[in-house]
Amino acid sequence: MKINQLAIARLGWVILIGLSLVSCTPGTKKEATAVVEPVTEFDPLPSWNDGATKSAIIDYVKDVTNEAGQNFIDVPDRIATFDNDGTLWSEQPIYFQFFFAIDRIKAMAPSHPEWKKKQPYKAILENDMPALMKQGEKGIVEIVMTTHVGMTTDEFEKIVSDWITTAQHPTKKKLYTDLVFQPMLELIQYLQENDFKVFIVSGGGIEFMRPWAERVYNIPRDQVVGSSVKLKYDYNNGNPVLKRLPEIDLIDDKDGKPVGIQRYIGRKPVFAAGNSDGDLQMMRWSDANPLKNFQLYVHHTDSTREWAYDRKSHIGTFNEALDEANQKGWTLIDMAKDWKNVYPFEK
Amino acid sequence: MKINQLAIARLGWVILIGLSLVSCTPGTKKEATAVVEPVTEFDPLPSWNDGATKSAIIDYVKDVTNEAGQNFIDVPDRIATFDNDGTLWSEQPIYFQFFFAIDRIKAMAPSHPEWKKKQPYKAILENDMPALMKQGEKGIVEIVMTTHVGMTTDEFEKIVSDWITTAQHPTKKKLYTDLVFQPMLELIQYLQENDFKVFIVSGGGIEFMRPWAERVYNIPRDQVVGSSVKLKYDYNNGNPVLKRLPEIDLIDDKDGKPVGIQRYIGRKPVFAAGNSDGDLQMMRWSDANPLKNFQLYVHHTDSTREWAYDRKSHIGTFNEALDEANQKGWTLIDMAKDWKNVYPFEK
Repeated sequence: MKINQLAIARLGWVILIGLSLVSCTPGTKKEATAVVEPVTEFDPLPSWNDGATKSAIIDYVKDVTNEAGQNFIDVPDRIATFDNDGTLWSEQPIYFQFFFAIDRIKAMAPSHPEWKKKQPYKAILENDMPALMKQGEKGIVEIVMTTHVGMTTDEFEKIVSDWITTAQHPTKKKLYTDLVFQPMLELIQYLQENDFKVFIVSGGGIEFMRPWAERVYNIPRDQVVGSSVKLKYDYNNGNPVLKRLPEIDLIDDKDGKPVGIQRYIGRKPVFAAGNSDGDLQMMRWSDANPLKNFQLYVHHTDSTREWAYDRKSHIGTFNEALDEANQKGWTLIDMAKDWKNVYPFEK
Repeated sequence: MKINQLAIARLGWVILIGLSLVSCTPGTKKEATAVVEPVTEFDPLPSWNDGATKSAIIDYVKDVTNEAGQNFIDVPDRIATFDNDGTLWSEQPIYFQFFFAIDRIKAMAPSHPEWKKKQPYKAILENDMPALMKQGEKGIVEIVMTTHVGMTTDEFEKIVSDWITTAQHPTKKKLYTDLVFQPMLELIQYLQENDFKVFIVSGGGIEFMRPWAERVYNIPRDQVVGSSVKLKYDYNNGNPVLKRLPEIDLIDDKDGKPVGIQRYIGRKPVFAAGNSDGDLQMMRWSDANPLKNFQLYVHHTDSTREWAYDRKSHIGTFNEALDEANQKGWTLIDMAKDWKNVYPFEK
């Protein structure tokens, strides 16, 4: 079967580089800064500090939902798309989905005694990151395929559900779903309450996100767009299944994001949120919407509560898009300054 | 560029056979039969005659939305999938999308004087169906590709929107969107009012349906699943576009329906409606849902108001699925008997 090695490799190198950084210093909790809140009837974004960023968001929503205004947007056109890794939850030291792949290899190892002597499995089982890095693209493809395909969609969903409810981040020592951004949860809810239909549009795996996105983000499964492998239907003697094949269907990153948006949504978004160069094409796509639109970039500036990185990061590179955001006046979230809380457990 | 000739050919032969039947006798309007209605507080399905079919639908919806009952289904799991051609609107004498392709060839002809002498275009321009049939698979592939790809998604949407609001069915002399089934519009609304999320899952083109599905069926664009071609993003000097490529992405028919459902929805439906063997895999997929589920088949039995056909039809073949529906006790709509009105203009 055909494997889109180039596409997987694109993700693969990120893992390899990232793995060498797993042992980085954990973030420590920062004392909440006392902020004088203006008296308002209701604050839809309580975890956001007052300032230009919060005002820009609220002003936009009020403007486009004002029926009497010239920028009013009909409900069906109120499409909002959010990247996931680094935008709705953290992505350091490596994309959380790659921790899933590593944990899967370890969980599957008892049934594969031969892995003790076989790369790239040996490196993972021995927590030998330098050795894993030496396996290169071929090793990564093997890890991804071993852990993400070959089973039915129902089986994969159960595997992800079991993992996401038990696995802990190596340095934060929290469930991965605890490492979602409280301000973004509030923003999703705020948009939904204003009749925006909110979608995730992520480079991460669609079937990796769906089992928990509904519960954690209140975003229905059919509003999750992500990278995917091809599926094959099998009637299976009256017990039909869909098998996950080792063949890439969509890489929902960079140029793939507008493609994924059109495939799944069929409309340009009016509101798009991201955090990296991988989101730039989605931003441009929403910027091309003739309706009044809004582009929001998370800038990871908080080395204490989260991580601080941008242009030169091994993951979530924010370089070309940072220049374009500044040039076009897109809204930048300065995480350290704009967010009163980062994670829900800090509330 | 690669063309999935086999997949297109599957559709292609249907056109060829269908085209030879375009001159069939038009349906004539039948006098509405007076039916004594039972006194009820509110009839959610006024265009359905009372009887086993209507009762089965209403009993199912009441059962699974009864919080105190053992068959209660949580709102996120209330997924309903409807086939389009032959299920939500008519499909005779050929799929309406193929009338679109033929009309497109005629509309594009002035810019292509060479078509007057070149097959398969010559046959279409001369309304010479026997000659078109002689062009076979190769001719059909050329017609589909000429009319459906090579433009941007925005351009294609405008072409479809213009056509669907002006083109008339050759024998019914109505807009194609007038030939939707009034009872099914009521059923969609009834399900939506009971918090079902209703999707179209059709072998027809996803981008062919989206421009009008929202207005006609009240089904949002992102809840339309259909066959698709691959798309390519082009930044286009700051005016980004998506180009429609002559390469099949998904044939959302037969085995492709469960694949499309998983890709776009991520859940097995609890309610599925179709009318042909092409829907059988979707029916089996919903039948495999552990939650209480419902399968509904439109049986085209009304030669007067619509068309009567099943096992041996050149289109919408209903043979293997008719046997399985009878065997498994799936609900069959006897159009002549169960539907008080067929089209909205008969109300």
